[in-house]
Amino acid sequence: MSTYFEDLEIGAVFELGSHTFGREEIIDFARKYDPQPFHLDEDAARQSLFGALCASGWHTGAVWLRHLMDFRKREADLMLFRGERPARYGPSPGFEKLRWLKPVLVGDTLTFTSRISGKIDSRSRPVLGLVLFENEAVNQNNEVVFSVVSKVFVERRIAYEA
Amino acid sequence: MSTYFEDLEIGAVFELGSHTFGREEIIDFARKYDPQPFHLDEDAARQSLFGALCASGWHTGAVWLRHLMDFRKREADLMLFRGERPARYGPSPGFEKLRWLKPVLVGDTLTFTSRISGKIDSRSRPVLGLVLFENEAVNQNNEVVFSVVSKVFVERRIAYEA
Repeated sequence: MSTYFEDLEIGAVFELGSHTFGREEIIDFARKYDPQPFHLDEDAARQSLFGALCASGWHTGAVWLRHLMDFRKREADLMLFRGERPARYGPSPGFEKLRWLKPVLVGDTLTFTSRISGKIDSRSRPVLGLVLFENEAVNQNNEVVFSVVSKVFVERRIAYEA
Repeated sequence: MSTYFEDLEIGAVFELGSHTFGREEIIDFARKYDPQPFHLDEDAARQSLFGALCASGWHTGAVWLRHLMDFRKREADLMLFRGERPARYGPSPGFEKLRWLKPVLVGDTLTFTSRISGKIDSRSRPVLGLVLFENEAVNQNNEVVFSVVSKVFVERRIAYEA
């Protein structure tokens, strides 16, 4: 599979892998970036509307991002293995519709997918195209817990062949 | 100042403080969550479109979040000091328009502000109201480098007085 703009198909779904959220990593992230009681302390969490210790929403997003980057790296390595230069990705003009639909509790296993939902030609940058992705995380009960629409400029094959 | 829904005024701007991004923390965050070469390695970054080592966009967002949480904690502590119960915040129905407008380079100092841009009554939850915030980070050259619209349910005074 190629990762150039021309070769990305709307509707394609990529499996990005899974991650089980541990107590220590939830607390570690929260201490640094989101020190709310229900992300730090089990007793406080039990008394909160979440009912149990849960990950910062920004932590869930960070773990999704890591899975996306690892997926792109695997795709790029496959192209290098075939002797092709992988397409360059970035920058991003922004993300939309960041949603935390259910709490992510200690021990929950999230599975991440990314679906190509749109492709837009770039008038100002002829060697790039803009690709939209609908990203989701579902937990072990198949409930969607997180979603975000990401956008990234992707190199066109024409840029490689020129 | 009270932090209850009724007492929040559209147009109010909150100063959340500043943070200088160090080389080590940029690399540490990138190793965990966004291992792209221009977030990890100075030589690779020089050859990238950013031209120098720069923070993961998700890292910038995480640091903004931390400043927002510390600000809310200070406001809550002030209310407790006056013998009032602080308003409960959360959950969030989502964030919109996440933007990374300029790279955040090693040594850059970002200053974070949050402006109340809207208030919406909640039909389904009469003790809460939805508050919209336009959040921004500017660097030491007064360039906006990051912005996001956040939304959070905020407790009404009526819930406290009931």
